[in-house]
Amino acid sequence: MRALTVQPGVSGSARLEQVAEPALTDGALLVQAIAVGICGTDVDIVRGEYGWAPDGRQRLILGHESIGRVLEAPPDSGFAPGDLVVGIVRRPDPLPCAYCAQGEWDMCRNGAYTERGIKSLDGYASERFRLEPAYAVRVENALGTLGVLLEPTSVVAKAWEHAERIGQRSDAWRPRSVLITGAGPIGLLAALLGRLRGLDVHVFDRVTRGPKPMLVAELGATYHAATLPSVERLAPDMIFECTGAPAVVADVLTRSAPSGIVCLAGVSSGGRTVPLDLGDLNRRMVLENDVVFGSVNANRRHYEQAAGALARADHAWLGRLITRQVPLDRWADAFERHEDDVKVVLRMEEA
Amino acid sequence: MRALTVQPGVSGSARLEQVAEPALTDGALLVQAIAVGICGTDVDIVRGEYGWAPDGRQRLILGHESIGRVLEAPPDSGFAPGDLVVGIVRRPDPLPCAYCAQGEWDMCRNGAYTERGIKSLDGYASERFRLEPAYAVRVENALGTLGVLLEPTSVVAKAWEHAERIGQRSDAWRPRSVLITGAGPIGLLAALLGRLRGLDVHVFDRVTRGPKPMLVAELGATYHAATLPSVERLAPDMIFECTGAPAVVADVLTRSAPSGIVCLAGVSSGGRTVPLDLGDLNRRMVLENDVVFGSVNANRRHYEQAAGALARADHAWLGRLITRQVPLDRWADAFERHEDDVKVVLRMEEA
Repeated sequence: MRALTVQPGVSGSARLEQVAEPALTDGALLVQAIAVGICGTDVDIVRGEYGWAPDGRQRLILGHESIGRVLEAPPDSGFAPGDLVVGIVRRPDPLPCAYCAQGEWDMCRNGAYTERGIKSLDGYASERFRLEPAYAVRVENALGTLGVLLEPTSVVAKAWEHAERIGQRSDAWRPRSVLITGAGPIGLLAALLGRLRGLDVHVFDRVTRGPKPMLVAELGATYHAATLPSVERLAPDMIFECTGAPAVVADVLTRSAPSGIVCLAGVSSGGRTVPLDLGDLNRRMVLENDVVFGSVNANRRHYEQAAGALARADHAWLGRLITRQVPLDRWADAFERHEDDVKVVLRMEEA
Repeated sequence: MRALTVQPGVSGSARLEQVAEPALTDGALLVQAIAVGICGTDVDIVRGEYGWAPDGRQRLILGHESIGRVLEAPPDSGFAPGDLVVGIVRRPDPLPCAYCAQGEWDMCRNGAYTERGIKSLDGYASERFRLEPAYAVRVENALGTLGVLLEPTSVVAKAWEHAERIGQRSDAWRPRSVLITGAGPIGLLAALLGRLRGLDVHVFDRVTRGPKPMLVAELGATYHAATLPSVERLAPDMIFECTGAPAVVADVLTRSAPSGIVCLAGVSSGGRTVPLDLGDLNRRMVLENDVVFGSVNANRRHYEQAAGALARADHAWLGRLITRQVPLDRWADAFERHEDDVKVVLRMEEA
């Protein structure tokens, strides 16, 4: 079968190649891949800047945002041929940390986890792949290819769940408004989950053209194509920072309402110091009971929350989030950045 | 009766003077003051740097850390003469915010609260004061003067409660170790509450002599009189930052274990920028699911948690926390900083 593989650490090493059928040791479910989403992590891996091949091998099959159709499932697996499934990305180490031992591999403390398509396990960008039933999440058949959005939605579902659980530090917490910085797939899916909760959602991004302003408006949210200081009076109850840009991070740290909750969800690179009045920031955070927290990855609970959210979402809107579908044999196109890209996916089977 | 008063905003204006007996409008309980604790806020007020007099007046009665004995109580008040009581500090505005309306005045969002001895309400540093039963907290008679520690303990109880509620974002959160920066009264009481929870408690402070190292050791906690980098390998599950010093704040932001929770509890002043690699900090917080939150003040729930903690604490240890008791007529001595001071209190009645 065909698979998109890469030699981690080597830029330009990605290629489409013939590989063996997936090993039964990968899991009891045999899945026909439908599509694989491309995100920043995939771009980093293809650039040679991230990723680990499985032990004893040089090359890794790419792809961690999956959607596929079950071809074979054991009778007692809870799955049946024809089911649409998404593979969970992370697996705990056989010697799990206290979090992984309870299924919270997203909170892993020792870093010994593996990740399909990223870290030491082949990904889902092969025509067929296998999954352990415990790491397969069913999505409703009506979603079809849109199920490829489940993995990024699970990341957002975790961020929302943590924000809401953190809010329970106060018995009186009733959030009404949320600001999201960055209108990429993560920011837009965060906006979707905010709207599904009935909140007043504001999305900030730099661009003034292309699909993002319309996608935000179609959710019933407000788009701000301005610099953040111009939205000074928002004072949102919650902020989801999805850009990872240090200047935006610095800005949102003091932008929430008193008793506000700021979620950092964008991975940034370090190496550049910015001058910050940390005494003033500390004073504000203390006197306003502000919270700032980081959130990464997702566990099974969050995938299931995400499946529920996608089922309730407007499928036409989800379809417009996927701005390009690239056939597998033209995979390189999927890694070229187009101005109007939001989510780009690789089609793993012929249309 | 005698009271310690100040003209807020005017340095050196504090004086002991005769004032009228407390007005019945202050509350149905008449209380004989036993002692009043002095904290940094009182020092700021005496320096003319903080505080507001009641409307239409120039002078404010100082004192917000109280302990007193009920002299008069209505039959249906839930209190009786002889009860030891502490007055809650904050009162919500008559037009309360959504938090104040539910009794969470510590989370007040509109800043319209008042505070006994600080903001627009007379404090407790008068020989007698009055309290509304809803803002009086009973402490066990065995505590005696030590009840003056209830107010600072309530601030710490809130910080602990919020840290533990925030920890519930994860089902697998089982904290074991805590680092506390600053061994003043707040830091030491935070250490006490950590030890009452059975945790491995580490306290960091600059001083190598005086009562602080011993007070920490007597709790069964570990004292670190070193620079923070030397305690690099601690990786505590929780950190309570009680110094408010920007350099220490900067340091603790990245010092917790993955999935760690940092509570900022020290009020700092701004005006000095420090260079900070915010991209690196953001990346760490995201990838490690770290939380940083601010905590200030306390509501009735936290006073009651604090009363429970003080009842369970070693009273001899609490007594050693109070390093000086100054008679009211020598009140100025209480505002002079002695090297070995931890908690200094004003004695409001003759011994």
